[in-house]
Formats: sequence, C-alpha cells, structure tokens
Amino acid sequence: MYSFKNDYSEGAHPRILEALMRTNLEQEEGYGEDKYSLQAIDLLKKKIGRADVDIHLLSGGTQTNLTAISSFLRPHEAAIAATTGHIATHETGAIEATGHKVVTVETPDGKLTPSHIQAVLEGHPDEHMVKPELVYISDSTEIGSVYSKSELEQLSNFCIGNDLILYMDGARLGSALCSKENDLELTDIPKFVDAFYIGGTKNGALIGEALVICRDSLKEDFRYMMKQKGALLAKGRLIGIQFLELFRDNLFFELAEHANNMAGMLTTAFTEAGFEFLTHSPSNQIFPILPNSLIDELSSNYSFYVWAKTDAGHSAIRLVTSWATKEEQVLAFIEDMKKELKTAEEK
Amino acid sequence: MYSFKNDYSEGAHPRILEALMRTNLEQEEGYGEDKYSLQAIDLLKKKIGRADVDIHLLSGGTQTNLTAISSFLRPHEAAIAATTGHIATHETGAIEATGHKVVTVETPDGKLTPSHIQAVLEGHPDEHMVKPELVYISDSTEIGSVYSKSELEQLSNFCIGNDLILYMDGARLGSALCSKENDLELTDIPKFVDAFYIGGTKNGALIGEALVICRDSLKEDFRYMMKQKGALLAKGRLIGIQFLELFRDNLFFELAEHANNMAGMLTTAFTEAGFEFLTHSPSNQIFPILPNSLIDELSSNYSFYVWAKTDAGHSAIRLVTSWATKEEQVLAFIEDMKKELKTAEEK
Amino acid sequence: MYSFKNDYSEGAHPRILEALMRTNLEQEEGYGEDKYSLQAIDLLKKKIGRADVDIHLLSGGTQTNLTAISSFLRPHEAAIAATTGHIATHETGAIEATGHKVVTVETPDGKLTPSHIQAVLEGHPDEHMVKPELVYISDSTEIGSVYSKSELEQLSNFCIGNDLILYMDGARLGSALCSKENDLELTDIPKFVDAFYIGGTKNGALIGEALVICRDSLKEDFRYMMKQKGALLAKGRLIGIQFLELFRDNLFFELAEHANNMAGMLTTAFTEAGFEFLTHSPSNQIFPILPNSLIDELSSNYSFYVWAKTDAGHSAIRLVTSWATKEEQVLAFIEDMKKELKTAEEK
Amino acid sequence: MYSFKNDYSEGAHPRILEALMRTNLEQEEGYGEDKYSLQAIDLLKKKIGRADVDIHLLSGGTQTNLTAISSFLRPHEAAIAATTGHIATHETGAIEATGHKVVTVETPDGKLTPSHIQAVLEGHPDEHMVKPELVYISDSTEIGSVYSKSELEQLSNFCIGNDLILYMDGARLGSALCSKENDLELTDIPKFVDAFYIGGTKNGALIGEALVICRDSLKEDFRYMMKQKGALLAKGRLIGIQFLELFRDNLFFELAEHANNMAGMLTTAFTEAGFEFLTHSPSNQIFPILPNSLIDELSSNYSFYVWAKTDAGHSAIRLVTSWATKEEQVLAFIEDMKKELKTAEEK
Repeated sequence: MYSFKNDYSEGAHPRILEALMRTNLEQEEGYGEDKYSLQAIDLLKKKIGRADVDIHLLSGGTQTNLTAISSFLRPHEAAIAATTGHIATHETGAIEATGHKVVTVETPDGKLTPSHIQAVLEGHPDEHMVKPELVYISDSTEIGSVYSKSELEQLSNFCIGNDLILYMDGARLGSALCSKENDLELTDIPKFVDAFYIGGTKNGALIGEALVICRDSLKEDFRYMMKQKGALLAKGRLIGIQFLELFRDNLFFELAEHANNMAGMLTTAFTEAGFEFLTHSPSNQIFPILPNSLIDELSSNYSFYVWAKTDAGHSAIRLVTSWATKEEQVLAFIEDMKKELKTAEEK
Repeated sequence: MYSFKNDYSEGAHPRILEALMRTNLEQEEGYGEDKYSLQAIDLLKKKIGRADVDIHLLSGGTQTNLTAISSFLRPHEAAIAATTGHIATHETGAIEATGHKVVTVETPDGKLTPSHIQAVLEGHPDEHMVKPELVYISDSTEIGSVYSKSELEQLSNFCIGNDLILYMDGARLGSALCSKENDLELTDIPKFVDAFYIGGTKNGALIGEALVICRDSLKEDFRYMMKQKGALLAKGRLIGIQFLELFRDNLFFELAEHANNMAGMLTTAFTEAGFEFLTHSPSNQIFPILPNSLIDELSSNYSFYVWAKTDAGHSAIRLVTSWATKEEQVLAFIEDMKKELKTAEEK
Repeated sequence: MYSFKNDYSEGAHPRILEALMRTNLEQEEGYGEDKYSLQAIDLLKKKIGRADVDIHLLSGGTQTNLTAISSFLRPHEAAIAATTGHIATHETGAIEATGHKVVTVETPDGKLTPSHIQAVLEGHPDEHMVKPELVYISDSTEIGSVYSKSELEQLSNFCIGNDLILYMDGARLGSALCSKENDLELTDIPKFVDAFYIGGTKNGALIGEALVICRDSLKEDFRYMMKQKGALLAKGRLIGIQFLELFRDNLFFELAEHANNMAGMLTTAFTEAGFEFLTHSPSNQIFPILPNSLIDELSSNYSFYVWAKTDAGHSAIRLVTSWATKEEQVLAFIEDMKKELKTAEEK
Repeated sequence: MYSFKNDYSEGAHPRILEALMRTNLEQEEGYGEDKYSLQAIDLLKKKIGRADVDIHLLSGGTQTNLTAISSFLRPHEAAIAATTGHIATHETGAIEATGHKVVTVETPDGKLTPSHIQAVLEGHPDEHMVKPELVYISDSTEIGSVYSKSELEQLSNFCIGNDLILYMDGARLGSALCSKENDLELTDIPKFVDAFYIGGTKNGALIGEALVICRDSLKEDFRYMMKQKGALLAKGRLIGIQFLELFRDNLFFELAEHANNMAGMLTTAFTEAGFEFLTHSPSNQIFPILPNSLIDELSSNYSFYVWAKTDAGHSAIRLVTSWATKEEQVLAFIEDMKKELKTAEEK
C-alpha cells in the first residue's frame, strides 16, 4: 500500500536529519535565541530580499495562523477567508478560540478576489457586526490552485486601499512557487502581503514554519504571543537548523519541484485517459474525478482521500505528492490505472 | 564557556536521533495516528501501570498546560498554583489567555499543601469570585523541591474531598522520580492525580511531553482541544518515536539520574565549602547562595542565572544540570570554585 | 416623522414605570436576590408550567446569548445557526469572542430544519473541525417567520437523537406566541428546547430578558457566568419588577398581540395593494417589496429600514410594530401609501 | 431591619424615575444614539471640562471594566491592581475571561503608588511573562480610601514615563470627590488618567456608568466592543436619561455628599466610643472594629457585612451608606450602639 494521502507521511529530508545530528551536542540558548535560528532568520531575510522584516519560527500551520492572526487583530476584528480556507474549516475553530470570527466567502477555485472582499465589506457596515480586517489567503490554496502575480497585486492594492491586512498561509508555498503556472518569486511576496509564512512541514522538514511579518505595525511583541500560545519551543534550534538546511542552497525549491513533477505526471495521465478534475491544480494536490469502480480498484494498492461525490457513479479523489514521493510508485499507479481501465473496457 | 543555564541547551540523546533516522522514510499516518505514537502510548500505559488512562503527545510544557487546563475547566473555574508555579509567572498568561484565572499562593518551597488550598477555597465562597477547581503542582517544582508520597497522597485526598482536579506538571518528572529523596514510583502518580505530564524536552528529547489523563470525565474530545490550540503536529511521529526510544528500556530514568548526580556533586561541593542554599533541592536545579565576587569570577567560564539577591554581598544563583551535562565540566567548575575561594581567602 | 424602525423606540409600558415607582425606596438585596426578582422567577415558572427549570434575568439579547452559549459549550464546540440568525451576523462576533465558532446554514425563511443540521453534522466528522453541539433558533425569527409546534417537535427530536443542545432566542417570543399562525403555548417551549429566553426589551420592558434553563446538566453555576460576563446587575430588582408586572396578568401577551395586529393591518394593506413580500411573516416584522419611488415618498413621513434591493426598481423594506405602535399612525401610513399609489397611477 | 450592606439597596433617586416617566413615550433611536444619551454625553463633557474625550454609557461596573480593559490591551498585556481591587477578586475572573492576567500588589490601604508598579515592572522583564500595561485604580477604593491630587499626579507621571495606561474605576467616584479629604475636582481626573468611569448605579441611578476615554489612541471602535460584550442596550435612553438628570444640576454631588455625611456620623460615633478602624476611610464605606458581642446585638436590627476577624473577640464590619440612607436610621443605629455599650459595661 502506497500513500498519496498527504505530504507529511514521511519524516524529513535526510540532509535535515544529518544537520540535526551534526549540531546535536553543542550547547545553545533556548527559546529560539540559538545561533542556528538566528542564522536561519538572516538567511531567510536574504532569500526574501528584505532585511527589514521580522521572522519567527513556529511548529505548525494552525499554530502559526492562530498566533499571528490573534496578534494582528483587535477583539472586534474578523478574518475573511474562502470557505475552503484552512482556518475556516480545518483548524477546529482555532481562530474563533482566540476570539475572532472568520467570515467566509464561496469561491469556485479557493482563491479570493477584490470583489469577494468588497462584498464582505459592504455586508459589514457598522458596530452591530464584526469589522473585517484581515484577508486570509493560501498559496497554493487548499484545493491546489495558485495565485498569479497579477491576482496577488490586485488583492494587495485592494487591501491597501481599504486598510486591510493581507495574510498569506504558505503551508504549501514551496509547491506554489515551483508550479509551472506560477509567475511569482519569493522576493515578490513581501511586496504584496503584510505577513506570510513559509511552510516547512509539508516541504521536507520534520516540523516548522517560518512566519514573516512585513508590515512594521504588526511586529511589536510577537515573541510574547508565541510564548503565550505555547509556540516558543525550548529547543528552538530544532526548527532553526531545519530552515538553515532547506535554504542554504536550493533544497527547499528542489523538494517542491519534485512534488509538483510527481503530481504533474499523474495529471497528465488522468487527462490522457479522458478524466476531468474537480478543480484546476498546477501544484502538488490534484483532484481527478473517477468512476467509483476505478476508485475501488486503486484503493487496494494506494491510499488517498475520496474528496467529494460528483454524481451517482463518480467521485473526486485527492492525490497529494511530496518531496518524498517515489517516481516508481507514481508510474506504478498510472500503470495500474491504465490496466484497470482496459479491464473495465473489455467487460 | 560552559552552560549550566538550563536542561535544554543541547539537542536530543543520540539514540533518539538514530531512531528518527531509522524510521525516517516510512510512510505513516499524520496527526499522531502513526504507528510509533500509538506504540509509544501503549508502552507508556504499561510503564505507568494503567491501561485505562488516555495519553496524548504534545510539543512543550506551556502548550500542554494550556491545552489541558482549558479543556478541563468551565469558564468560571480557576487554577490554584504556587507563586513559583510555571503557569503563574513563566507562561506569559497562557492560562488567562484561555479565559481562566490562576489564583496564587505563597509557599516557602514551591510545594502546595492542603492548608494552602483550604485557604483559597475559603476566600472564594460565591459567584462574585472565580471558582477554584484545579490544583496545579509541579514535580519537581520550579525551585527544585520534590513531593513525597505522603505529601502527594494528602493533596490527593484533599482534592477528592473537595471535588478539585489535581494536575501535575511533570516537565522535570524524570528528575523528581530519580531524586534521592523521592519515594514515589511512576506507577504511583496516576493513583494520586487526575492528569499529569511526563516531560521529554528537559530529559533528553528534542521536543515532546506525554500528557496522561487519568480521570475519565476529563478525557472526552481531547484531540479536538489539541487541534484547536495548534498542538496536533502533522508529523506526530516526531514525538512518538522519541518517547518510544526513551521508554523502551530505562533510558528516560538513566538520563534523569545522570542529571541529578551532576547536581548532587555540585550540591556537595557547595555544602562542603560552607555555603547555604536558597531552597532545599534534591533534583537537577540547585540554588546556592554565593558571594557576589565569587559569582563574578565563575561567570567568566560558566553561564548560569543569578536568581535572587539575598543580601548586599550575596546572591543565589541557579545551576541546572541535564542528561547532557559533562562530569568533567562539573569537576572543573568545582575546582574553579575552590581555587577562587582560596585566592579570596589569601587576599 | 413616525418610526417603524424597530420595537424598542419607546420606553416601557406605563404600568412598568409605575411598578418601579411604587417599590422604589424599599431596601432590597442586590444582584438579583431581591424579593421582586425571586417572585418574578416563581411566577414565570408557573406560567411556563415547570417548577424544575432555572430562570435568570439578564439585560439584553446579545448578553443573554453570549452568557448562555459560552456556559453551555466546551471550547471546541460550536453553535449552528441560520445565516439570518442574530448571533451569526448582528452581535459583532459576541459568540466567537467567547471562543466558539458559529456554523451557518442558508435557509429560505430563517428557520432551521433537521435536514439543515444533519448536513452540518456530516460536514464535521472529526477533530480537525469544530464539533457542532448547540442549535440556535429564534422564534419569531429575525425575518418574521414563526415555528409551528410540529416543526419545533421535529427539531427537538433530532437534537435529542444527536446529543445536541436546542437553544431558542426568544427576543420576540411574545410576538411569535401571539401570531395568528402559531400553535405553540408558552408551556410547550420547555418540552422541546433545552434553554430559551423570554424577551422583555422588545415587548414592553425598559430592559430585561428571562433565560430559562430546562436541561439539568446546563444549570450548574450559571450565576458565576452572569457575573463574569457583566450580566449580574447590582440593582437586579430593575428587571425582576418588570417581569413581575408583565406576567402578573396577561400584559405580556396583550402587548405582543397589539404589535401583531398593527403589523397585520399593514400586511393586509400591502396585499390588497398587490404587493409581494420578501418573506412570509405572521409576526411584528414585515418585509413588503415596494417600488423605490413609493419608498421615497413614504420616507418623508415615516422612518424604516430599506432591507434589500430586489430589482432595479424595487426594494424590500422592513416595518416593525410594537406594543407602543399607535393604530392612528398605522392607518395614516396606509392612507399615505394609497394616496401615493393613486398619484403615481394618475401620472 | 435596616440595611447598611451596600449602596445599591434602593431603586433610583425619585427625580430619575420622574425623568423616565416624562420621556417614556417619545420615539428615539436605539443603541445609545437617542437624543438623551447624546445630550448626557455632551453635558458630561462640559462637567469634565474636556470636549475631546469620548464618553460611552454602560450598565454596570464589571461590564465597564471588562469592556474597557479588553479593548485597551493586546493579548499579552496585563492589568496591575491592588489585591483589594474589584477586578482582582470580585468580578469572577471577568478580565481573565477576556484573556488578560491581573497582576496583583498587596497594599495597606487599597491604593497603588509608583513604587508598587515599579516592582511589578521589574518582575516582568521579558516575553516569558505577561507585559504589565494598564494600571487599574479605584477612587474611592474598595476599602473606602481616596486618592489625593498629589498621589494621582505622581501615578500619572509614572505611567506616562513608563508607557502605561492609567485607568480609574469610579464606581464610587461621587463619594470620593465629595469626601472631606478630597482635593480633586472632576475636571482634574482626565488630566491624570487615560480612561475612567463615573459610577451611576451606586450614586442614585437605577443602572448605568459613564466611561470616559481621554487618550486618543484608546478611542477607536469602542462601540464595537460594547456590542460584542453585550453592553450596548437596545433602549440606551434608559442610561442617558439618568445621567442627564444626575448632572443637569448638582444632584450627582448632592447624593454623594449625603452618603458621605451619613458615614461621617457613624465614624464620629465609633471614634467617640473609642473604637478603631480596619482602614482609614473618609468616604461612604467604613470598617469599624467592634467586639463580637456588640456586632451580634447590632445584627438584630441592622444588616451589614462582617468583613474580617481581627482577633478572638473582635471583628471589623463594613457599613455602607448611600444617597438613600435615612439620617434617622443612622441616629437610631448610633443610639442602639451606645445603649449596648452601656449595658455591656454594667454587666
């Protein structure tokens, strides 16, 4: 049984474990003030092309989202997210638990546009309703789509014009930036958003996300927030060492590119076989719509999520590839699919 | 410069990193439902001697305390803690951030007794005040003391008699249980407390605490709480593998014993040199009161915290040893201290 | 200018002010333990037909909703509401501010059905999402509809079968129970719901809502919650005296009936004039769809909210009547409308 | 039985009820945007001598404190209060329920000084602890003492110098300002504090406190906070009319002066009889230390709180007078006390 369930099924890229080994017995300061975390932060600033941002290393995506958003907002302020947004449905009310409403918008492709946000603002005119203040987007989105430079720029301009904070969840930013359809550079992101994070967990790290705060007014006292939310690890080096390894050369991007390539092979195979997709995805999560009988057959050798029933005989499945996905398994999957289709045809 | 600042200066015990290496490329379920986490939980249940407890693996102490306490209490209920208790002063209001007051009690030695709690209950008679509902203790305490079996039993009986939840912060439970003055077994703890955690981070792990929920009524839906607080790691295997390694033989206790032995050597040396201690500590944190001049001299080769000024010429320092503390460094420290004392005497 | 903007434009029914006058200088206990509050609670229990419920008197609807819902739920549990539900949009995130998500459902008429709730439950299967636990309904709803006995019974059975709490916002319960289409008695409500409140503010009181907690497991320590949320008035007598006056005879229902009758006259007039309504309302809020020109004309003598644009030339307006609405003003409004229509026709 | 238990035993000053009667059937805007609330706010600005402050009318003290403090602070920031401070012990954790720790300081007289606050700041140096940001004081204090102009000025200067918010709970500000030992004018308060409230409930109103926000940076969006916390009354006129009546002439101060005079008569009588006081109080709450036998005798005709046991045979009681306290009852109390003392002497 080979798993295409998610991009966190394996441990870390071996170079990361080696780096942990290499530095293991050195004595370091605690709580993220160790040499490695500081170096990683410096390195990230260079890669991002901005010396003036603040960078903090946290354990996971939900933790990063809840710590950042609750730090950025006053009690009556709300986040706006697509209904597919991770904070809207898959974080067990983590944002609400810090006191803030998440106002959701239905979108066809998981992406927000200025007109979506405009509609939310118009529906929240006064103090009897929350004040929408932060726009939450994900790149790549939870359903695999990616933002173009022009889309992000338009969102950014709209947010500036309406005094909104633009926050990007980059749990899969690596995959987004390495997507064939992407025209954004890592150095573009801080030009457009007020804060974002670079996801490590889903791109080769054991654990760890790097939150980048670009807007000055959002920076103050952020380490207090991290400590209060349980996000300041005693052995912060654990995350610092990993980001240092991921970014000291091109490893971070190579891993994302591999994941995308593996997904691309699957996409090509499904397309050639005549299948449609629930949503267009140029990143490492794809959602082909398949006959239920084919899904059943594939399930005996591969694990994946059945995402949505599309009609009586078909469902969309989610296949996720990662830095660790083996090409031979992708090829085997495609082979098995073709074989099943042929068998089915012959019946 | 050698550090006695804390017990999380180094990475993990080498066996832990080896275990991570060994299992690295296996595909596993996410969010703590992997094989290793499940095995670790089973193993811990055996070590604790209770099959009926629920065990959850979390990243750090503050995160464990805030997730557990906010799960156990209703909105108007409060925790009682010693003023030295970690939740009272060193977690940036993490408990209050979940809505709960921490009512504090001054204690000479960091330990709570039934009479402390009785006084708090008497001071909170009705709905104009919070309802004290959970008693928070640490073993070893934040100032190095340990609970005896009889003390813990008395607390337990008092809590049962007053419908209170008894919760133990075991960030340094290893050191407590391996203390020469300890008469508790790990299997005793669940007999006396409603929930506790076994600290990994300060006893050889990279990251990780194992929360044990003993009382049935506190168990329900705890994984929801973890997810909501950002405590459910995508790669939960990271913690599972570590606890499995720490407990598959006696490693956890050996590491704690080493830390205690190192502290014991320092304690003996200070005692022989005629120094007093701020507080009696049979565990891995000690607080000798030294002349400021000696502190200054020692600071040039060793790092540690100056804890409290005790009079014009003296201060208490905190020295913390760990599984990784090198005996040769302890001996060197003692040697240096003696040398300094002799030099001072000769002046 | 006469206002049909809402049902809280005037002060209190004169009998209420007289009762406040009459009892003004008597010395009473504070914080709702006064004689009048206790008598009011006893009286309400009789009117409700249940001696075993707990009743608490609070100031307003948002306060009652937030205090009750945050008391009833654990941190990971959510409320389910119609998108039109007051807690969903018109309370500035009051429920989220206590930590709980409000999961919303689109409904045509502001009412929830078992199938709505079933769909929410199916969309929230595990700990990565909040746990829907409380069903929030309003009777009458925020858009004027009322629940039938059979509808409420079905909801109740569904909630019992799925371990859900059924909570009714009764800000306009008077109007609902006195609606011509209603077949519920006040004594029916506690048979079907776990908690509800009887709204005073919108039915003749200066201030005050009576929360009725029917399910035993929700009763404990509720006064603590009230105090914590700022809902325990020092001079609780203020609310007690008002409910005593409203319920010592039939005043509460007479006031609601008057409001409904006034709305009914308006509804008949609009219907006779050939207008449609945004939603069917047999209570004291109606939403006729009118030509914009007519709305403009009526606006010069009457104030009301323009609720929604329905097409280029028409909008729905909201007209609210109350215990204090003067029949002569309703007649004048109808007359003015007819005059405008005639004038428009002649052009 | 005559009550000296508190200053909210009676309803409102009769002029207030008359004002409510007089305006009762006028149609007004809801949620504090009515003519009377706006007039009251204008009037208060004149009385305070500052046109640039923001004023909001809320129901009660706990509600005002929790809404203001949670609006003013970021999540990691804490309030500093005397252990006797209302928010510290008598509000059921209302401040903590909004996420903020209350750091307490022992004081002999319920008043805070710069040195108290300095000590708290020194104990909270970094992000492992909350950040003390708001200083909460009460005038008069919860144990009857009052701040002098010089004391308040020193506190103010200290807070400015340390970037702290100075907030004054004025539940009994009337009594403080009318105290014989007071040298503050109402117009002085906004010179020294960043926000304060003028208590109506304990000085003749049925309900209502007027929060004055002086510092510009604390003003934004406060009505959102009020709505979210359930503090925006639908019939806001109820509070507006009362403050208008209390301040349109000197009524507010006359009522406070009467309360103080009644307490002064009691103080004189106890002093002449040779009794001491738990604390020096020149306001409307006094704490004489009496023999338990005398307390028992007085309890048969008068109700009051026994505040603290001072030795085996004595206790301090709390006597509270108000605008409604009858001079004849005070005289009767004094007479009864003297009679008892004489009887006791003769035994």
